[in-house]
Amino acid sequence: MLIDGKRFRSIWLADDARSVLIIDQRRLPFTVEVETIRSCRQMVTAIRDMHLRGAPLIGAAAAYGVYLVCLELADLGSAAFEKGLQRAIAELNASRPTAVNLRWALERQRTALAACASVKDKVGAARRTADAVAEEDVAICARLGRHGADLLAEMSAGLGGRPINVLTHCNAGWLATVDLGTVTSVIYEAAGRGIPLHVWVDETRPRNQGALTSWELGQNGVDNTVICDNAGGHLMQHGMVDVVIVGTDRTARNGDVANKIGTYLKALAAHDTRVPFYVALPSPSFDPDTPVGVGLIPIEERDSREVLTVRGYGDGHERTVQLFADGTTAANYAFDVTPARFVTGYITEHGVFGPDTLAPGLAGSRHG
Amino acid sequence: MLIDGKRFRSIWLADDARSVLIIDQRRLPFTVEVETIRSCRQMVTAIRDMHLRGAPLIGAAAAYGVYLVCLELADLGSAAFEKGLQRAIAELNASRPTAVNLRWALERQRTALAACASVKDKVGAARRTADAVAEEDVAICARLGRHGADLLAEMSAGLGGRPINVLTHCNAGWLATVDLGTVTSVIYEAAGRGIPLHVWVDETRPRNQGALTSWELGQNGVDNTVICDNAGGHLMQHGMVDVVIVGTDRTARNGDVANKIGTYLKALAAHDTRVPFYVALPSPSFDPDTPVGVGLIPIEERDSREVLTVRGYGDGHERTVQLFADGTTAANYAFDVTPARFVTGYITEHGVFGPDTLAPGLAGSRHG
Repeated sequence: MLIDGKRFRSIWLADDARSVLIIDQRRLPFTVEVETIRSCRQMVTAIRDMHLRGAPLIGAAAAYGVYLVCLELADLGSAAFEKGLQRAIAELNASRPTAVNLRWALERQRTALAACASVKDKVGAARRTADAVAEEDVAICARLGRHGADLLAEMSAGLGGRPINVLTHCNAGWLATVDLGTVTSVIYEAAGRGIPLHVWVDETRPRNQGALTSWELGQNGVDNTVICDNAGGHLMQHGMVDVVIVGTDRTARNGDVANKIGTYLKALAAHDTRVPFYVALPSPSFDPDTPVGVGLIPIEERDSREVLTVRGYGDGHERTVQLFADGTTAANYAFDVTPARFVTGYITEHGVFGPDTLAPGLAGSRHG
Repeated sequence: MLIDGKRFRSIWLADDARSVLIIDQRRLPFTVEVETIRSCRQMVTAIRDMHLRGAPLIGAAAAYGVYLVCLELADLGSAAFEKGLQRAIAELNASRPTAVNLRWALERQRTALAACASVKDKVGAARRTADAVAEEDVAICARLGRHGADLLAEMSAGLGGRPINVLTHCNAGWLATVDLGTVTSVIYEAAGRGIPLHVWVDETRPRNQGALTSWELGQNGVDNTVICDNAGGHLMQHGMVDVVIVGTDRTARNGDVANKIGTYLKALAAHDTRVPFYVALPSPSFDPDTPVGVGLIPIEERDSREVLTVRGYGDGHERTVQLFADGTTAANYAFDVTPARFVTGYITEHGVFGPDTLAPGLAGSRHG
């Protein structure tokens, strides 16, 4: 999508195919900085410390991490290569616990590489697989966006020309994927069809991914308003939200949705006020191996400094400021799980499903 | 309550009784600064710009504002005095829209002053009424705290000695009242009785009153942990919250509760997870003249800069930093209304009531 009118993806292979380029999202929206990732270890850091984030992008980044380690190990013998590869895959797999795309992408690499006899073939296969994961992600997001836009078109038809008000939480934007986004693919596609719309963007503490969402929507011409995470219930109670659409880091077989902390609260408000609540779910974020989400999907706890401080811009500089008194204790749960009973539907690249039709609808689709 | 071991109230009359002293809460928890309020106009600014906040404290501040304007007008003739007084009362009344304590305190002053014949008598009555509003607030909070602590004692008895986990939103602390607080009066009383407890403190964006709550609990020896506003649902879903207790800026006759934006979301989560949800409600915050809260209690919209920026501490200075890209639009609704059906009970100075027994229970109690 566009930054200052220029097309970008969130991750791409360098021209010499020896390194991977990403946008360092920690500095957005204040500074657009491209970071060069030259090793798998550097990719692990980028994922863990959230230079990049978003379940689909984490998947692509992990796939490229495997390619980078293959390059690093290419001159070693087969046994040393295999040992190094397995260690790297384990490190990538442990870099973040909740997004299932990470495990899915690593499994794809593992399968692809196992089919190759020589180290040289493995290096080639790792690159092709990483590229395929990235390209497929774009294609999945595009298809998902069209199904979602069909939904919005239907809803919009009943509004007499006024903009449809979409509320979203966190950044399920192009910055969370390779391009287009999941929730934002729906929005960009709908906007492209001329459906009038306005987006309420949850700030999404503690890391304020709402700042990414608002920025990317603005850069791509979509009208939006930032609100505190506290405000969504009030807006829904007063008829100011027509539909909630959120992303997901992992959706269990029964339809329980792990997503950024606070999603569950929005789902409850939508349910109480009869606002439809949709999840934009690319099939690589669906986890048929986890039967139920609540209690079974691992919820990442991150450093409490993410709560106790915030990064912003002041006096001409990016700055981190302390928000609480010295010695304050904080807890930082990064995700929560929304029970399937609060979900109206799942917008996937294969169409829109309800909680009961989701697992059969996506059966077999994850073998990309 | 205590700051660095020394007893403070949040508002008090200066020794010469010509000005009113308050703690400027905009600078907490980083700096404890006492501000001298010398005129009614200055008090209007202090209320509107939130040098002080919290419904009960706003009531006391408004009462003292009337006293200050009486001093200012004391040398004028009766007609000019009356005209100035009415204008000042109107300005105080317009300073913030949601807390009903403001209107209640001004009505008390109006009634008290109407009963006096001379300007001199009115000045004396205004001072006595303001002092009475402040003293009664402390007494109400003390009684409310004892009723609430009885509840916590009962709950605690079933926990086998582990601390009872209380979640609260915003600051219904001694800083929101003249002393003791509403929610915190319950907590301080329970802690004083030796009931083991731990408080989850919602950060409470956009103004982060959670920083006040965490700081005052810490200053008064109560174990607490700050969380983002997004986290409460996850904690309740995982059995980590035993009871939610929040304050209120205005509770309607039917029991609908206006309180800091985001309260409704916590009530929904408590309801979904069967966690008891209590409202600490001093009778001056009860509004029997508003039959239903949702749609009828006015919800203040404040400056969007409160959302777009945040005040913190960095590099040795209090600083305001920008959180979003230049040109971002934000909305800032300051309160929401929790429907009575989500409230387990109301902890008042007259005992604990349910939604059905609240109005009869408090009938007549607001004529202080």
